[in-house]
Amino acid sequence: MAHPLLQLTADLIDIPSVSFEEGPIADWFEAELRSIEALDVIRVGDNIVARTDLGRPHRLAIGGHLDTVPVNDNATARIEGDTLHGLGAADMKGGLAVMLALARTVADPAIDVTYVFYAREEVSLEHNGLRELFDSVPDLLQADAAILGEPTDGVVEAGCQGTMRIAVTLKGARAHTARPWMGRNAIHRLGNLLDALETIEHRTPTIDSCTYREAMQAVWVEGGVAGNVVPDAATLTVNHRFAPDRTPAEAEAYVRGILAPYLEPGDEVELTDMSPPARPDLRHPMMAAFIGRNDLEVRAKLGWTDVAFFSEQGIPAVNFGPGDALLAHTRDEKLELEPLLRTYAALEALLRTGV
Amino acid sequence: MAHPLLQLTADLIDIPSVSFEEGPIADWFEAELRSIEALDVIRVGDNIVARTDLGRPHRLAIGGHLDTVPVNDNATARIEGDTLHGLGAADMKGGLAVMLALARTVADPAIDVTYVFYAREEVSLEHNGLRELFDSVPDLLQADAAILGEPTDGVVEAGCQGTMRIAVTLKGARAHTARPWMGRNAIHRLGNLLDALETIEHRTPTIDSCTYREAMQAVWVEGGVAGNVVPDAATLTVNHRFAPDRTPAEAEAYVRGILAPYLEPGDEVELTDMSPPARPDLRHPMMAAFIGRNDLEVRAKLGWTDVAFFSEQGIPAVNFGPGDALLAHTRDEKLELEPLLRTYAALEALLRTGV
Repeated sequence: MAHPLLQLTADLIDIPSVSFEEGPIADWFEAELRSIEALDVIRVGDNIVARTDLGRPHRLAIGGHLDTVPVNDNATARIEGDTLHGLGAADMKGGLAVMLALARTVADPAIDVTYVFYAREEVSLEHNGLRELFDSVPDLLQADAAILGEPTDGVVEAGCQGTMRIAVTLKGARAHTARPWMGRNAIHRLGNLLDALETIEHRTPTIDSCTYREAMQAVWVEGGVAGNVVPDAATLTVNHRFAPDRTPAEAEAYVRGILAPYLEPGDEVELTDMSPPARPDLRHPMMAAFIGRNDLEVRAKLGWTDVAFFSEQGIPAVNFGPGDALLAHTRDEKLELEPLLRTYAALEALLRTGV
Repeated sequence: MAHPLLQLTADLIDIPSVSFEEGPIADWFEAELRSIEALDVIRVGDNIVARTDLGRPHRLAIGGHLDTVPVNDNATARIEGDTLHGLGAADMKGGLAVMLALARTVADPAIDVTYVFYAREEVSLEHNGLRELFDSVPDLLQADAAILGEPTDGVVEAGCQGTMRIAVTLKGARAHTARPWMGRNAIHRLGNLLDALETIEHRTPTIDSCTYREAMQAVWVEGGVAGNVVPDAATLTVNHRFAPDRTPAEAEAYVRGILAPYLEPGDEVELTDMSPPARPDLRHPMMAAFIGRNDLEVRAKLGWTDVAFFSEQGIPAVNFGPGDALLAHTRDEKLELEPLLRTYAALEALLRTGV
């Protein structure tokens, strides 16, 4: 017999929930949560908020997304000993199972708890269910701190770096390629800019004892007119990841400064998207107690995650969940029992003991 | 009243003949040429070959394409004084008019003449009507020398440079852009290669007193996986124009040598097309007499033209026609009477006088 928490995760895997198709799993969670007397349950679209209202001095939000990436020959859960295989095992049906088990088990927590289950995290930000909730029922998400159950293998990943994309279009002048001196090759102009991107020394600022590591990478390049024409435009899209000691405006100015030496009149630079960073904010008493009591490892979150939605509202937030992030989105996604139990135990202690 | 040669060119403009729609103009030429007693006329598809068979010691091929690029608000001929406006005025209904006038007027030439009117020059090489003729009736195209009536403004453009395209795919390794050190950015790798392309010192070899000028230009670039992924491949297509003192194989080896320092195991280099060059070959007695008698200016042809089809068969060939090549394919395409008459006079003298 599998451990009940591993079995619950397997049951959740067996409810298909690829992004935009979260209806059935949202129905399932809604019914489960409504059956728990201590919780007020509100559904908005395919997102569900379930709250205790015990008048405790502190409130913790615990959240996770219901959706998975597309099926990759791994739709059905399979348990082998203490290992669970299947789509979403790591990202993040294990985290959802922990949340639901906490809601069922800890009926009288020492802190008020807001469980947040939401849709469409694995697709573009505009569709994100947590954004939908912050837009429609922001009051229901207010809390002193938040924990998202993304796979961190039971390590606290604090804050997150911001991410932005800038598209740079270098211009040239068309000419026949048999007489290129009559024109100017915009693709050739990319050379110096690419060299610069490759050789930047990136910052590694430490904030609240978390060391971030910035990065800047070309992610798209395109250019060309015809096989016999000197191209008059080439576009490079650059993705910059920036630490939470910089605002989005500061980060944008930094990138524009990197690009500036390679630009000429007529070239175009366009910010195509911007997701703000989140500061680690580990000094909140609830977070400090949680980390200290369980002697949890803490590290900086380099990627962007939904903790930024909470951070934007001034709510300190961390990622903390079972599962190995490196297995997320892979065909061989799997989850071990040990980190599942360890994660559950740490959160249960927080709920039972409080600050 | 317009000069008859200008009027004939105008009449040819008024027969629409965009590439792949040459049927009506081929019908028209076929009928005109069949009415000339001295000519044997053969039609292959929309291509026409019309030959004298007078037993002369030398034979000259004079060729031109029947098609035009697409209409650009310039479908109808318009004569203003000595200027003719309209689609194909320069490229190359003026040349066709010269050829037809020669066929009508010089009934008893001192050299045998093969007139070649062919379809689909303004599209990709595989469709070229001259290629179709060389494939299907090569014997009919045999000659001691060839002149193509492409617009050169009455200058002899000798031979042509070869042109080839090579696609280079540099590889990398995917990673999340928040952790780029886990991967390798294939787009960044383009930087050094582009710098090299921009700074090559190209050869300018002189052959038969014609100075060629080689060139190498990136014409397409593409790469990218997703906005948050370090790209694992980037493809650059390079167009090389090479002088006729090199064979295609030598030119390809040269390009591969330029690329080699920037390649690593796993990268891919593919020759995607190759059009061989043509040597100027101006020492043939008929060409020498033609150029010397009319004191014609001679220059190297830097682009690729259909003269290479003749050159491949060992037939020296040049471009020589009325019209300004810079106006070809433009909406404001036009032709002046003076170069039309000058071109006609030089060719008429060659036909009447021979070597």
